[in-house]
Parts: sequence; C-alpha cells; structure tokens
Amino acid sequence: MGQPTGQTLAEKIIARAAGQDSVRAGEIVTCKVDLAMIHDSGGPRRVKPVLERLGVKVWDNSKVVVISDHYVPAVDQQSAAILKLTRDWVKEQEIESFYDQQGICHVVLPERGHLKPGMFVVGGDSHSPTGGAFGCYMFGVGATDMAGVLVTGETWIRVPETIRIDWRGSLPHGSSAKDMMLKLCATLGMDGGDYQAVEYTGSTIAGLSMTERMTMSNMAAELGAQAGLIAADGTTADYIRAAGANPSEGTPFRGDEDAVYRVTHEFDASALGPQVAAPDSPANSGPVEEADDVAVDQCYIGACTGAKLEDLRMAAEVLGGRKVASSTRLLIAPASTRVTAAAAADGTLAKLTEAGAILMPSGCGACAGYGAGVLAEGETCMASTARNFKGRMGARSSKVYLGSPYTVAATAVRGRVADPRPFLAENGA
Amino acid sequence: MGQPTGQTLAEKIIARAAGQDSVRAGEIVTCKVDLAMIHDSGGPRRVKPVLERLGVKVWDNSKVVVISDHYVPAVDQQSAAILKLTRDWVKEQEIESFYDQQGICHVVLPERGHLKPGMFVVGGDSHSPTGGAFGCYMFGVGATDMAGVLVTGETWIRVPETIRIDWRGSLPHGSSAKDMMLKLCATLGMDGGDYQAVEYTGSTIAGLSMTERMTMSNMAAELGAQAGLIAADGTTADYIRAAGANPSEGTPFRGDEDAVYRVTHEFDASALGPQVAAPDSPANSGPVEEADDVAVDQCYIGACTGAKLEDLRMAAEVLGGRKVASSTRLLIAPASTRVTAAAAADGTLAKLTEAGAILMPSGCGACAGYGAGVLAEGETCMASTARNFKGRMGARSSKVYLGSPYTVAATAVRGRVADPRPFLAENGA
Repeated sequence: MGQPTGQTLAEKIIARAAGQDSVRAGEIVTCKVDLAMIHDSGGPRRVKPVLERLGVKVWDNSKVVVISDHYVPAVDQQSAAILKLTRDWVKEQEIESFYDQQGICHVVLPERGHLKPGMFVVGGDSHSPTGGAFGCYMFGVGATDMAGVLVTGETWIRVPETIRIDWRGSLPHGSSAKDMMLKLCATLGMDGGDYQAVEYTGSTIAGLSMTERMTMSNMAAELGAQAGLIAADGTTADYIRAAGANPSEGTPFRGDEDAVYRVTHEFDASALGPQVAAPDSPANSGPVEEADDVAVDQCYIGACTGAKLEDLRMAAEVLGGRKVASSTRLLIAPASTRVTAAAAADGTLAKLTEAGAILMPSGCGACAGYGAGVLAEGETCMASTARNFKGRMGARSSKVYLGSPYTVAATAVRGRVADPRPFLAENGA
Repeated sequence: MGQPTGQTLAEKIIARAAGQDSVRAGEIVTCKVDLAMIHDSGGPRRVKPVLERLGVKVWDNSKVVVISDHYVPAVDQQSAAILKLTRDWVKEQEIESFYDQQGICHVVLPERGHLKPGMFVVGGDSHSPTGGAFGCYMFGVGATDMAGVLVTGETWIRVPETIRIDWRGSLPHGSSAKDMMLKLCATLGMDGGDYQAVEYTGSTIAGLSMTERMTMSNMAAELGAQAGLIAADGTTADYIRAAGANPSEGTPFRGDEDAVYRVTHEFDASALGPQVAAPDSPANSGPVEEADDVAVDQCYIGACTGAKLEDLRMAAEVLGGRKVASSTRLLIAPASTRVTAAAAADGTLAKLTEAGAILMPSGCGACAGYGAGVLAEGETCMASTARNFKGRMGARSSKVYLGSPYTVAATAVRGRVADPRPFLAENGA
C-alpha cells in the first residue's frame, strides 16, 4: 500500500469538492459547487432563457450570489433594462444574496462574508480568481457553463497542475501588489499561467493585507491561470470576521510539504520599485522610469484590482495636499459602496477630492469600457486597473498605461507618468 | 421735464448693459454681455462651425466661461468625443475659464466667483436663470443666439415686465426652497412667468442662504420666466467673497419703491409643508400627503437645483443613521466637485454613504437622462431635480416625482413617498 505523494492546496480543495480523499493533476472530476457568483452582464440575462427552456429553478437559492456591477449605474435604456431584468430574475428565483450596484463583484463577494477558506466557487467573470486570496478554489466560467452549474450545482474540472510563485522580502514603500503582478506579467507573460493554478507563497505574501492579496489573485487572470491561490492564515480569518462571517466554517487547507508543483518561480520583493505597463498589454511592464514623462489625459483609480480602500489610501498618501495637474483629470471609482463609506468616514475621500479628484460610482466602469470615464480617440490614460488591451477603456486609438495607485496619483499630480517615490519621500521629509 | 417712474431691478440691470439711463418694459434694446456661459452640450460643438465659417474668434476670451457638465464623465465614444472637442476648442480659443467635469454649470459658475451683482449674463442652458440669485440678469439662449453673442459680445432683448413674488414668514423645519418652488409651479403654472422677469422679494427670501436662493432662481425656468431675480444683499456679498471674488466689483441694484410690476403674488412660507410634484409636470404639485405611499424604485438627489451642499445636508439630516430601504436605491450626485469635497470634509458624505447611498459623479446626469442613473421601463423615481417631464430621466414609461432633498431622503428610508417631518421630529426627540 504505497503512500500517496503530498497534495497541493488546489488539489486538496478540489478533492473535497469532488467527494474524494485525493485528486491528482490531470484527472477530470466532477465537483459540487459551494457558491456560484454571477453579475448583471453575464448572469440573469444569459442564463434565464436556458433555465426557462428547461423549466427549472436554480439548484440552491442560498448558494447563488447575484451582483449588478457592469451596467451600473444605468446610463442608457439598454443598461436600465438589463438591471431591471436582473432584479426581476432575482425575485423570481428567490435568490437570497443580491447586491444591486453596491460595487464590483470580486470585492463585494468577500466584503459581505461569502468566501471562506476551502470553498469551491465558480464566478461568471474572468477576474473570478480573486476569490483564491481567501484560500478558495475560485475560477471563471462562461454563461453556458454557468447555466449548467445553476441547474445541477456541479461542474467538471480537469485538476490543474500548480505553478508556485514564491515572493520573499518586504516591499519597499511606494511599491504594492500591483507592482508585483506587473512584474510577474512581464516575466512570465500572459500565458505563463497556462490555465493551471497559480499559488502565491513566501514571506512577502504572508505580510500582505487581504486586499493586497486580492490584487495578486485577481491578476492571476492576467497570467492566464485558472486560479490564483493563497493559503488562508490569520490575516484571512481576521478579514472574514470583520466581514461579519465565521472563518471557522471554512477549511484552511495548505499544500503538503511534498506536494508536486510544475515549477516554482522565485522573486525578491525588497528590490521591487514601481512598475508600469505600457500599451497594450500588462506584459509590457517595466520599471516606471521606462515610461517616465509620457503625458496623460486621464488618470483612473478604479476596478476590482485597483480601488479598494487600501488603494485609495495609497493615492491619498501620494497626493498629500498636492493638486491634480490642470493638463489631466483624476477619476476615482471606489470598488464598492462599503469602500466609499469607509473612505468617507476615515478622511480618505476628503483628501482625494481636495486634490481635485472626480468621484465616480462603484462598478466595473471605465476599466472595461462600461459607464463613466471612457477615453476619446487618441487619449492616453494611466490606470490602476488590471488590463490595458487595445480599446478596452474606450476609443480604439486610446492608450492605457497601468500602474499602482501610488503611481497613478503621482502621475495625476505631474500630468505625466511619474515615479511616486519622490512624492512619498518629500511627504516624509 | 417729467420724472421717470421708478425702475425694476431687471430694468436697471438691462439699462446699464444697454448703456442707457433707463429702459422700460416692452422696449427692445441691445446689451453688452458681461459674461457668456456655455457647456459641452450646447456650446463648442454647436458654435464652432459658425465661428469657423465666419473666420472669427470669440469677442473676448476673458468673458466666456466653458463648463463640461452634460456628457460627463464620458460613458461612450460619442460623449468622449464631445468632451475632447470641447477641450480642443477651449485651447484654440484661448478661453481663460474652463471647468472640465467639475460640476453643473449653474453651480460651478457662482462657486468659482464668476457672478457679481448687476451683471448681464447669457447662458447656453435653460436653467440659466439660476444666476439671477446673485442680482444678475441671467437668461438662457439657444446655440444660434449664443454664436451671435460669442462673435459680437452683444445681444438684443425685449425688456421684460417683472412679476413680483413676495414670500413672507419663516419656512418650517423640513421645508425648503424646493417646496416653495413646487408650490409656485402648482399655483402659477408652468407658463405663469410668461417669459417675463420674476423677482422674488420678502422676508423669507432675505432669510434664505445663497444656495437656497439659487434653487428659487433656477426654477424660475419652470415658471416659464426668462429670469428669476433676487436683489443682492449681505448674504450675496458673503458668498461671493467666500468664492474668492470681490463683490464690490458688482452693482447691487434694487428695484425702486415706485417701480411698476405686472403683478405681485404673495405667499406665506410659515404654513408651507413639504410639496411633491406628481408625474409628469412640476405644476402637478401638492402637499406630500397626496403622493404618500407611492412605491419608488429609485431615489435621486442630484441636479443644479437639488444637490448643493445644503441639499446634501438636508438629506443627511433626515437619514440620521437610518438605512435606505432594500426595495429602493438612493443615488446621490453632488452638484460639483467642490460640493463633493466639502461634503467629504464635513462628514456629510460619510452619513450618506453609511445609510447606503450610492455616490455618482457630478454633472447633469440622470436629471436630463444623461449618464448614470437613468430609469428603466415602468420604473418610478423620487428626485430632488427641477423637472419630471415624461421620459426625461429615462424610459418613456418611467415616472418621476419631485420633492426636496428632505423628502427624497425620507422616501429612500421608507421605499415609498414619505413626509420627512416625522423623521426629523424623531431625530430631535
């Protein structure tokens, strides 16, 4: 009776969801879904016709979370109608958890206590790997697959190999998880994840806040990974408790010592300065100096990956009483209404608006070319978002640079791509 | 040599602008324009072709104020292109005062110190009478007339008669300028102003803050008046100073004792409770009790007439720690970025967002069916805006009720049209 070799974090979660003692990379298994998250864009309007044709309701109305975040707030009749269809479907299906324009799904889901370690979760959005920050196996599926999940409560999965990405050392002041991810995109490329599981490990990750970890897991999508996992720890439990949920309802799996990884990449955070992705790919990243002095028409702090409370505080810290340059504009769309409320209560919003920032509603917004803040022909934007594909934020000829909220704020003050570190040093002096 | 009879406030301002000692209602005169305000919708994109055909620039680049407030923030390629055209035209014309998505023109113009008593001002928007609150003669013109003003610096005007509206007594707590205007719309009708000048007088008006006075003058448009004047006083001077301008550069004209008015209407503010306008006209107004219990899908605090700092504070006062009902949504679009910054700094935004309000960008927005917050087919909205014409806020079958920010906030808490006074009484208890 041979001992099985150790399992990875991904394998352990998938095994539990498949009702097996263990699974192995490459194996195809059917898993029970603990939670399915859908939004107004890919959700009710796509799955409703399928369920109606089958004459069934969702398999478990307590395990489906619906979040309207794409067509919010309605800016035209099409979007108003989509939001209404979503509300009506939620009533009809008696969905227990519905968040109507309360923020971006990937932020709202954990913020409202829906994620606990060890869960197997599907999301109807490409940035669904965000949930991996909570030690969940969470990944994105299209509307057809989602309809299947909603009917059966199950989905099949080919157990992924795990690509371990190990970060050591403390991030210098002025660098953040966004810089770590841009560095990874540049180094590993946008197909470096090969639709396998990425697992982030090491002392740097252990030292990151939950919201910074969410940025790491979120942008596993930009590495082409199916999931971006971080093993749950005390930081995870604290966040879940603060969200009003009970972390001990989850299972904080950890990969075994002798688990088999496809590869382990090692990175040193202590030497990492601010990174900027040039158009039109996160993989076009390099040190901020390489983009230095590019004039920008718009600065945008928004999206699931760049407008959480911590992101807004980074921006406020760089602004530090400075004003947005007259040659540009700084749009800030907090990731959720809870983020907005917290930033209003702790003075962060006052700092941002006093600098001249323009507040925007919470939602996917301009990051995905929806709603407020889209770019005109020929315009250039510096954004704290995850993706800068051609035309994603508006006109086909527009250009988007990506950077951390620190870097976006510094760029807003200067009107040109700027390194935030001199501003931070000046503040400290 | 007979003494001329006294002149009205309107006649005095127009006489000065016409370079005459006096003018009389009915006379047609040509006036020098002290200031022309245009916005992104009716402005550059409309007047640029005219000026280009004539091969001229604006008559005085220090007397033209351009404010982008309609297509902001850009939600699609058309709006992004209009904003860009506006920016480019401002550069080309070397316009000195340009406010790019800093708020709604009628609020931004005085907020930035552009209005002083006695000025003769034209605005490219139907709510231009707002400027009358500063003792200016300000009225709206279409794009063709505006092109003429921009080329010549002059415009003709038929001197209006003045309809005096005299308010006496102190407004009860929970009533506001919006309630006064809805009462006037119901009593005088939407053509009661007959494209003449309205002048508000009396102790109630004298006791109103500048922002409440702006609501009075703004909605002179809903009475069908050309202008809505309030003689300047110490309150006016204080506001102008706070805006960083010098009130003594203006002339605080007052109507003569023996001025001739077409009619004087008298109203008692002390008996005025909250008013609500039912669809589809501000003239369909009556006491809030008449609309009591109408279920609403959306509550909207926004627009030039309903989202100044004082308006937001009224809403926050009613909310007083309460939450928005789950059956509705409360969208709040502060009237300008300065309002947002002030509300962030003084804790008002924190109160609003903690109640569950969704913050929106500053601009004309949903009030005029632009941008965020438009209504779907069949939806009902309670709004602090000035107009509830059929389909104005979105779908043709949507319905809009109008009320003060107090009333909108009370309605948000209840999910149905509600009288704010019980909430305020409970707060005080």
